[in-house]
Amino acid sequence: MTTTSTLTRADCLARDARDPLRALRARFELPPGIIYLDGNSLGARPKAALARAQEVVAQEWGQDLIKSWNSAGWFDLPKRLGDRLAPLVGAQAGEVVVTDSTSLNLFKALAAALQIQAASPDPQTAARRTIVTERSNFPTDIYMAEGLAQWLGRGYRVRLVDAVEELADAVDANCAVLMLTHVNYRTGYQHDMAGLTRLAHARGALAVWDLAHSAGAVPLDLHGAEADFAVGCTYKYLNGGPGAPAFIWVPRRHQAAFAHPLTGWWSHAQPFAMAHGFAACEGIGRALCGTQPVVSLALVECGLEVFEETSMDAIRAKSLALTDLFIELVESHCAGHPLGLVTPREHARRGSQASFTHPHGYAVMQALIGRGVIGDYREPAIMRFGFTPLYTSFADVWDAVAILKDILDSQAYDIRAERSAVT
Amino acid sequence: MTTTSTLTRADCLARDARDPLRALRARFELPPGIIYLDGNSLGARPKAALARAQEVVAQEWGQDLIKSWNSAGWFDLPKRLGDRLAPLVGAQAGEVVVTDSTSLNLFKALAAALQIQAASPDPQTAARRTIVTERSNFPTDIYMAEGLAQWLGRGYRVRLVDAVEELADAVDANCAVLMLTHVNYRTGYQHDMAGLTRLAHARGALAVWDLAHSAGAVPLDLHGAEADFAVGCTYKYLNGGPGAPAFIWVPRRHQAAFAHPLTGWWSHAQPFAMAHGFAACEGIGRALCGTQPVVSLALVECGLEVFEETSMDAIRAKSLALTDLFIELVESHCAGHPLGLVTPREHARRGSQASFTHPHGYAVMQALIGRGVIGDYREPAIMRFGFTPLYTSFADVWDAVAILKDILDSQAYDIRAERSAVT
Repeated sequence: MTTTSTLTRADCLARDARDPLRALRARFELPPGIIYLDGNSLGARPKAALARAQEVVAQEWGQDLIKSWNSAGWFDLPKRLGDRLAPLVGAQAGEVVVTDSTSLNLFKALAAALQIQAASPDPQTAARRTIVTERSNFPTDIYMAEGLAQWLGRGYRVRLVDAVEELADAVDANCAVLMLTHVNYRTGYQHDMAGLTRLAHARGALAVWDLAHSAGAVPLDLHGAEADFAVGCTYKYLNGGPGAPAFIWVPRRHQAAFAHPLTGWWSHAQPFAMAHGFAACEGIGRALCGTQPVVSLALVECGLEVFEETSMDAIRAKSLALTDLFIELVESHCAGHPLGLVTPREHARRGSQASFTHPHGYAVMQALIGRGVIGDYREPAIMRFGFTPLYTSFADVWDAVAILKDILDSQAYDIRAERSAVT
Repeated sequence: MTTTSTLTRADCLARDARDPLRALRARFELPPGIIYLDGNSLGARPKAALARAQEVVAQEWGQDLIKSWNSAGWFDLPKRLGDRLAPLVGAQAGEVVVTDSTSLNLFKALAAALQIQAASPDPQTAARRTIVTERSNFPTDIYMAEGLAQWLGRGYRVRLVDAVEELADAVDANCAVLMLTHVNYRTGYQHDMAGLTRLAHARGALAVWDLAHSAGAVPLDLHGAEADFAVGCTYKYLNGGPGAPAFIWVPRRHQAAFAHPLTGWWSHAQPFAMAHGFAACEGIGRALCGTQPVVSLALVECGLEVFEETSMDAIRAKSLALTDLFIELVESHCAGHPLGLVTPREHARRGSQASFTHPHGYAVMQALIGRGVIGDYREPAIMRFGFTPLYTSFADVWDAVAILKDILDSQAYDIRAERSAVT
């Protein structure tokens, strides 16, 4: 689509001047000369994280040593962080822990969901054997589901659909779990969580949601949607630090039945009794397993703190304004270049990113990065730009598009560029 | 046993003066006034860890952001750290990764071992169904094994023995895996890894070893023992930081058959291709799963570096000298008090700790901690003292025993002390 935008850079600066979130940018350390549009892959560093890392390493570990498990609250950290994260996803306190990786938490949630179905007194429910998801889901989610299904045997399998419209057929009498990523990592397409959860429930399936590209990016209401389980990532929009532990949500109504094979000491009813038989604790602690990486875990809090100074509604309003602006400017200023928007124009279906295809998308992205505009590339031919309202300005958007236009107009990209390992 | 020691504090200082490891103490930050005998629970902080944490947080995360996955080597970190750790356990480069928790790595190793047995062309081997271990094993190891067995179903179960002598009977024609922790967390008893692995193999079972209390504490020769799989901890004797990611060893001979259900993106043959079907990579990368906590992971290197300035033989010689001294001084100076040594006197059967029972062990340990001697307590009635040759001196041992003697002689402990959460 080609549009003609009449906006100017001054208009963007004016928007920044009246942006209610503008003060929060100062809470982040951003490298000079860089326009960072990859916060959907690795969130920028909250300034507070450096002092917190020093405190944990120098004082809690170095000086207080083993007693920090109690005195510094290390033992309670997964739950304390979970309680702080809960409001961002529409969960309640006592329903979220920050622990392990998203992949592992998904494994736990799927295992629990399959177990709940298998334990049903209704033989038809107990016989349900498929985990339904999209072929376009984040690959590791599919791998984890396949790994679980294969090891469970007994006919369990993953069923992939090619389009959201096919879900209505695929969620059939054999479907145990509908597993979806709420916002697609590549296109930024946002599912209707409430509607698809309703579909799953109407067909007798449970709904497991991956919020990796949603938490901190779009308003979420897990309880309102009546979702069954959810997992997500803290190092993208939540700015928790590289590879920071992930989260898992188990609503109270499912906690008593929540069971999975990764039964480590931290989920035991009496973790320090060193009892011989496993007995799961009550509550969300059941989603824990082994000892957690305390330094990385502690830094998650520095990301969560910033969210407490605003609201997901304010973040969403700015996010849509940023992605709308980016789309408008790209389609206007770069008209004539073979760019194709793959992110939905419809607000309700859009996450907090905008992705465009270009036949030389990889080379163009390398050129952008060389000019200080950090986005990323995803096969096939997709340039992905993430917009993080806490620290991205409207002027950033203007400047990024100006650089993109310059690169495209001057063909200042090397189409022979190798596609090396990108993350 | 009551002995009369003629040693003096001056003798201990003389030993320190000629200790070939004495210079390494300066590599660690130790709180003033504290005698830290709990490095078997949480190792002390290498001084280098603070600067490394600052570098990872401020520069790699804060300034270099997403490109640090390549430029700072984040993506290779699990393997790079594994290669550095390998010599400490008798493994080769390309056989170890540092990742996830010990519990999760044990789950992977057990799953792979069971799978190898189940895939045997020999129907009797394929039908083996028990994981044999000791009732006195670290509880979470038993929980993880039970979790796996229960979810696999098909008759898989964990069989517990009460004494090492019973293993010869328990490792029978139904035993798929002998799973043992090499050094017992409570007593410090060290198994004969080569002998028990030989027993397992002679009976057709595989041997999986947990090295949580061995790695960095005692010399290990996984290849010499012909062990099948091993896992271990980096935050105890390896001084990697609180809850730092654990390690897993898969020898080359088993790597092609190494399969487990936790099939995350990091173990994929083409992790960035975002392929739809899971295809495990070649080599030790198969033991990886999801994204790792980079800050905690990076600090593991600061612990490993120190080991490269000495040898496990030198560490072992000092470790035995420290535990011998502690035992001699306690039994001599605290004679008459109801203390019972539970750690083997035989060097070959001893790890790097010394544990004594006392009827009021919990209260006495609290009093010791109050006086700056940090050990810990484990049910039932066991006071546990870890000796870490890299930073513990002979004078520390003398002073710790002097304080213990004073507490016991003056009954300066509160037998009403509550047994609160201890770690």
